[in-house]
Amino acid sequence: MNIKRVVNFIAGLIVLEGILMIIPYIVSIIYNEPIGRYFIFIAAFMILIGIMIQQLFKTEERFYFAEGFVIVALGWVSLSIFGALPFYLSKTIPSFIDALFETVSGFTTTGATIINDVSILPKCMNFWRCFTHFVGGMGVLVLMLAILPTQSDNMLIMKAESPGPTVGKLVPKVHDTAKTLYVIYFVLTIIAIISYILSGMPIYDAICIGMGTAGTGGFVVTKNGCADYNTISQTLIAIFMLIFGVNFNLYYLISIKRIKIALKSEELRAYLMFVIISVALIALNIFMINGRSSLSIHNVFFQVSSIITTTGFAVSDYTLWPILSRNILLLLMIIGGCAGSTGGGFKVSRVLIDIKSIFIEIYHQLHPNSVRTVRFEGKKIESETIRTVAVYTLIYILIILLSIILISFENFDFETTISSVLETFNNIGLGLSKIGPAGNFSIFATNSKLVFIFLMLTGRLEIFPMLLLFSKNTWKRSR
Amino acid sequence: MNIKRVVNFIAGLIVLEGILMIIPYIVSIIYNEPIGRYFIFIAAFMILIGIMIQQLFKTEERFYFAEGFVIVALGWVSLSIFGALPFYLSKTIPSFIDALFETVSGFTTTGATIINDVSILPKCMNFWRCFTHFVGGMGVLVLMLAILPTQSDNMLIMKAESPGPTVGKLVPKVHDTAKTLYVIYFVLTIIAIISYILSGMPIYDAICIGMGTAGTGGFVVTKNGCADYNTISQTLIAIFMLIFGVNFNLYYLISIKRIKIALKSEELRAYLMFVIISVALIALNIFMINGRSSLSIHNVFFQVSSIITTTGFAVSDYTLWPILSRNILLLLMIIGGCAGSTGGGFKVSRVLIDIKSIFIEIYHQLHPNSVRTVRFEGKKIESETIRTVAVYTLIYILIILLSIILISFENFDFETTISSVLETFNNIGLGLSKIGPAGNFSIFATNSKLVFIFLMLTGRLEIFPMLLLFSKNTWKRSR
Repeated sequence: MNIKRVVNFIAGLIVLEGILMIIPYIVSIIYNEPIGRYFIFIAAFMILIGIMIQQLFKTEERFYFAEGFVIVALGWVSLSIFGALPFYLSKTIPSFIDALFETVSGFTTTGATIINDVSILPKCMNFWRCFTHFVGGMGVLVLMLAILPTQSDNMLIMKAESPGPTVGKLVPKVHDTAKTLYVIYFVLTIIAIISYILSGMPIYDAICIGMGTAGTGGFVVTKNGCADYNTISQTLIAIFMLIFGVNFNLYYLISIKRIKIALKSEELRAYLMFVIISVALIALNIFMINGRSSLSIHNVFFQVSSIITTTGFAVSDYTLWPILSRNILLLLMIIGGCAGSTGGGFKVSRVLIDIKSIFIEIYHQLHPNSVRTVRFEGKKIESETIRTVAVYTLIYILIILLSIILISFENFDFETTISSVLETFNNIGLGLSKIGPAGNFSIFATNSKLVFIFLMLTGRLEIFPMLLLFSKNTWKRSR
Repeated sequence: MNIKRVVNFIAGLIVLEGILMIIPYIVSIIYNEPIGRYFIFIAAFMILIGIMIQQLFKTEERFYFAEGFVIVALGWVSLSIFGALPFYLSKTIPSFIDALFETVSGFTTTGATIINDVSILPKCMNFWRCFTHFVGGMGVLVLMLAILPTQSDNMLIMKAESPGPTVGKLVPKVHDTAKTLYVIYFVLTIIAIISYILSGMPIYDAICIGMGTAGTGGFVVTKNGCADYNTISQTLIAIFMLIFGVNFNLYYLISIKRIKIALKSEELRAYLMFVIISVALIALNIFMINGRSSLSIHNVFFQVSSIITTTGFAVSDYTLWPILSRNILLLLMIIGGCAGSTGGGFKVSRVLIDIKSIFIEIYHQLHPNSVRTVRFEGKKIESETIRTVAVYTLIYILIILLSIILISFENFDFETTISSVLETFNNIGLGLSKIGPAGNFSIFATNSKLVFIFLMLTGRLEIFPMLLLFSKNTWKRSR
């Protein structure tokens, strides 16, 4: 482990975060909020110590896998701790663990909150909450790679921070790939915000909700969240959530006019099919159990879009839907968005690879000596990929089961317990029972909040970077 | 697919089942129950048509994997249909689907019942219910292999019917292995029954409960089940359940005086550790939440033993335990007994292999090019085994998730829905909420009962035989 290299990189991240904090400071000036001074003080402090540490820990050594993982994991932990300072020092959120929970929930684009009524917060604070969604959505380290000059070994970092089982470079250089992704991300976000404004949403709300939609995070700025906006705005939000749940590689392909190849994507088709089937089943279920008057296709579509993309906005209290509908929502929580999108969860591509592995194995039972190749997105699935994705699934499930046991100590009901773990681990921010649209995470004890903080980070970074922090192999001297 | 071979084998099974039905007929004579005549009529009919079909479908051809799986799957379906006839024709259970559910639940050693009060059933009928547990526990086809002369290709059948990821022959010949297993099984069952009688249980009850304990099935013969017996009897039941949840290979090793090797078994140690940790955690949880007066270590131990071995007896209403305790029980439902025992579930050995695979994968993330070998029970785990067990886990989870969606149409609560799927698929017979010790499966609609019948058979036969019935590759002409 090359500690110098790690500390140097993380110090750079702190500087970058300090610079980003100037934006909420500007918001505070616009709305004339004196509390905004915390942002500029903290920003100045962060930039200063960041640069100092960078000078102290200068190194030219290259790094290995272990450093890549540690940089990503500790980088995100540091960003969250520093990002919580404005909430904590300004006493907007008096408890540090709560402030940390809120910031981690922001950066990981979870959107679960411990605040009972966000509408009474200063506008600059709410802006910072939503801005963390935007920054965390595409990834802070990817942003740094987009800004900094290229280094050959940065692909490791990008791989570790980007969601999905396979991360491809769009263009030969990592630096250019990161830049291209951020340009697409930025343009789509601007389009979303303008659409929201045109549909009648207040400008401040449109910017905040737009950044949340982009990062697929679920923080809101009014008491009733998205239920406070008109139907056109809500429909636009639902559509944009779906858009940000798609693999960004497809938008790159579209931008270079390879639309046909983009539309052929198996993952895209499966993703849209999951949405359509879920909307149909839930609508049918509500219609049959609760009756025609309780059914609003608009609300069902909004909720399905919000959950599968792991965004976490709500327009109706779906905790009152019948059990089949609720169980479909739980399944969608697990599936999550497409690989390479800003959405969290297990990812549609992993679901598809797992299902294909199952079919190979069934065939293998009948013909143990023959080899059958199965293709995904036009490429042959290697035995290596099958094993890696399958074992990833095992770790994923093991973490969920162990966390459910830990959260069970709270002695809440079954649905609250299970959905609290699923919604934080998959970075959704919406659960069932006590933590549905009407509830929030302030009901949990500090121990549980720490578990959730770990789950949100582990889920966002796709497990390995966080787990490897606890492996003694990670901390051995490099070869 | 060699249909002749399949039909011939299944016809033999029907003859064997017919012969076994003479035993409940003898019980009916002892207790002077005229309804017992159904057993002898049905037995005569089965033996007759079984022999006739065997004569019609004579074949000498050998068979391949496909035939092995089909024989096991259709064999179990046929046994269940014929086994349901005494219940149905005698109008003991007036609905055929209910009678089939009860019989499948018996043979698969699930022990879930659709009967509200079993104490009013004739003694011969209750005997038949419990006898199916005994026969299904070690396997009907294994019994046939133990009786019939050896054939070289019978290992396929034994592999397909026996639980666990790896089935080894104890002795070179399959026929002798099957015989040895049945001798151990028989001797242990007799010891259990005698112990129960000595502890004060009525002889009839001791025989029925003893057969249930042996097969790890949960049918009872009195209104309150095991709660009707004294504490010593209950403790003996708890201990014998644990004994039948252990890999029978270990008893073979003990019988040939290799006790040290038997006690070194990783699976045995993990199994006992799961029991001890669960008892400790549940006891602590009840003590902290419900208070000292609600805590009975005896009851906790009984319930943990009953659930992890997938037996399904109950002495107290654990549905009133706090949520942590209930979630631990759900976890134990999934883990199940040891491979090569009569217990169902996912199996302790698969849990261990999966956990070891996870550690290999974490190491692999840091050192992608190095190979690390991990051992289980003294043998190196092959990459092949890791993949097979991991994909088995995926199928296992997929079936559970899809079944939960299907059962959700009933619109019961969350715990009832989830536990109904887990308890049938893992052949336990005890669930939570509406299907705890006080409830039964009569609350479900016919559609759901068919799902449960499929789940019980699929779980008992470890998925592949049942799934392969639906694969068109299975039905292709043999090579």
